Amino acid sequence: MAIVTLLSDFGTVDGYVGAMKGVILSRAPSATLVDLTHDIAPQNVRAGAWALKQTVPHFPPGTIHVGVVDPGVGSARNPLLLRRGDGQLLVGPDNGLFSHVAGPGAQAFVLDRRELFLPEVSRTFHGRDIFAAVAGHLAAGRPPEQCGTQTDSWVTLPAADVIVAPAGEPRRGRVVHVDRFGNLVTNLPVSLLAGRSWRVELAGRPIGAVQATFASVDPGAWVAYPGSSGLLELAVRDGDAAAELGDSDPLQLEVMLCPA
Amino acid sequence: MAIVTLLSDFGTVDGYVGAMKGVILSRAPSATLVDLTHDIAPQNVRAGAWALKQTVPHFPPGTIHVGVVDPGVGSARNPLLLRRGDGQLLVGPDNGLFSHVAGPGAQAFVLDRRELFLPEVSRTFHGRDIFAAVAGHLAAGRPPEQCGTQTDSWVTLPAADVIVAPAGEPRRGRVVHVDRFGNLVTNLPVSLLAGRSWRVELAGRPIGAVQATFASVDPGAWVAYPGSSGLLELAVRDGDAAAELGDSDPLQLEVMLCPA
Amino acid sequence: MAIVTLLSDFGTVDGYVGAMKGVILSRAPSATLVDLTHDIAPQNVRAGAWALKQTVPHFPPGTIHVGVVDPGVGSARNPLLLRRGDGQLLVGPDNGLFSHVAGPGAQAFVLDRRELFLPEVSRTFHGRDIFAAVAGHLAAGRPPEQCGTQTDSWVTLPAADVIVAPAGEPRRGRVVHVDRFGNLVTNLPVSLLAGRSWRVELAGRPIGAVQATFASVDPGAWVAYPGSSGLLELAVRDGDAAAELGDSDPLQLEVMLCPA
Repeated sequence: MAIVTLLSDFGTVDGYVGAMKGVILSRAPSATLVDLTHDIAPQNVRAGAWALKQTVPHFPPGTIHVGVVDPGVGSARNPLLLRRGDGQLLVGPDNGLFSHVAGPGAQAFVLDRRELFLPEVSRTFHGRDIFAAVAGHLAAGRPPEQCGTQTDSWVTLPAADVIVAPAGEPRRGRVVHVDRFGNLVTNLPVSLLAGRSWRVELAGRPIGAVQATFASVDPGAWVAYPGSSGLLELAVRDGDAAAELGDSDPLQLEVMLCPA
Repeated sequence: MAIVTLLSDFGTVDGYVGAMKGVILSRAPSATLVDLTHDIAPQNVRAGAWALKQTVPHFPPGTIHVGVVDPGVGSARNPLLLRRGDGQLLVGPDNGLFSHVAGPGAQAFVLDRRELFLPEVSRTFHGRDIFAAVAGHLAAGRPPEQCGTQTDSWVTLPAADVIVAPAGEPRRGRVVHVDRFGNLVTNLPVSLLAGRSWRVELAGRPIGAVQATFASVDPGAWVAYPGSSGLLELAVRDGDAAAELGDSDPLQLEVMLCPA
Repeated sequence: MAIVTLLSDFGTVDGYVGAMKGVILSRAPSATLVDLTHDIAPQNVRAGAWALKQTVPHFPPGTIHVGVVDPGVGSARNPLLLRRGDGQLLVGPDNGLFSHVAGPGAQAFVLDRRELFLPEVSRTFHGRDIFAAVAGHLAAGRPPEQCGTQTDSWVTLPAADVIVAPAGEPRRGRVVHVDRFGNLVTNLPVSLLAGRSWRVELAGRPIGAVQATFASVDPGAWVAYPGSSGLLELAVRDGDAAAELGDSDPLQLEVMLCPA
């Protein structure tokens, strides 16, 4: 019984996601469908890649992930299938959506077997006509090799800036994600924190020493702490840090980690 | 293992949808539940019918669809079960919600077997007390004939205006759906486009020639193209067409297809 | 094939819920996952408890419910497992979230078997690292006794005010929940209505006699009726009662039930 997850920017209200589910189940009626999210901001490939990064590593080998955030649908971008080293499969547009989860040793296939698609392929809804259709065949047992032609190259998003600095010097990073609670996730790996004490500044504003967790400070106070993604996070306890920044776009702000 | 889909205007936050799922699984523990959407605008039967139209045709025979957008709950409207020609089942209020998906040759049943409902039937939540309960029995193998009394009539919404015009004359239609991306779906079938070139006007505003897809124009430009539902669509590439119309209600606007 | 439901205040967009699903399926690949809701207002334990109350009683014995609304994550609050009298299991933070569904005769266990958690337990995401991990083990067949240490006490929210008044006297209650439609659910049990006629006042405003259902009045009119949760509800037919109250917080308003 294959597990097939779905991630998209479709919302659910228009029936697009429902159509994809029907296409998959028509080809693999006993597949287990799992919604990851359909609330990715429209056409925001970067946000989709982030959500996949939080999610895919926790699924078992053999899971098939269908990801559709696809501003280039109908243009020349390829439909893509990736097989990770652990056997999980990723199906979607070749636009960088899978950048953070392909991992080393992934094999890539361009989906070019038209007989696996819906009989009529629209120019605007490859999620249904190509990706769900191929995922259905994969869930029914067809191996990736029989779904497309192997390729050596696929699109990747620029990696998060690598943080290098001499010992004792401040590390400079930035906010790379704002979550539903208004917490600010930085690109500063928690591993940087080992071995000494640090204090944090957000766009020049002192946040204080890195704490064990946000429950370490009083309600309403700013706090920096090791986040659950292995990255330094900034939050307002029991509050919404992004909202407190007012008009500033958090994704533009510098985060500085200074020896305490 | 029966597949049971759910569509409603309940949102999920109040627990109404969760209650329906529990009722179904209590009667058919191995059913596969599939969320279509719970984000239909409150009491908007037309929008629910639209989402079902995008979705139901893609599901396999035997699928049971529970649809609950039910402003008339507690009034005289009947609880309804429809069996499509392909064997898919539709369960919900008899208010037109299934108009676009019943199809020719559907058989209809009024749900009047009270012993199949929850022991206590509320006046406001037939989704749980009647529709989910009956869907659970259907998923457990009970045939439609044993769930109600066959009927010849059920409520249908007015069909989309049929477009008839002499060859060479403009075709006039209208916007019938605005999707999450702000794309405007018209009631002009793509089949109208065959055989010659066309240009499009939206409420008198020239949109240009019909393109192959929205990727055919530059970002920010308006574009008309054959949509994935088999209907002409209007969009702003990488933008939100509905938002660009400002205060105008897109559903009030005329779309004209003129020989180019 | 265990049924595992999920309820949270995570939304879905950040991938937190997807991560929990992966963790569960990695331990119990054939589990049936059921989303209750992820739209509980951030950190609103009371609202989560309400949604569980509407939902849990309808599920079959053996169902495992994972509930995560957890403002105290990382503090001293215990991770909790409850076994209801009917064999359903509840997994989540010990903060009152399960107050309305534990029921009499529930057995409680503090989750203290670290070998069942993810190898690295973050301070901010016990939903993934503890609750989903333990739920996966439960779904794979591990008995509750082997997941933690039995305890006699757990946190409960204050119960809804009990309504006691001499016969013939008005009953005073309040609004305890506003649903997606703007309907106002009170804490006045429908059983209070038996045996005589009543009229209703909302913060001094006359609403009229209790009706059989909201379809009993004209569109746009206020109406009081027995709700599907067994509690008196107030609504505006085909409208949004909460919106009509303007700036007043419905949860602050008194509802009075007077002999008619």
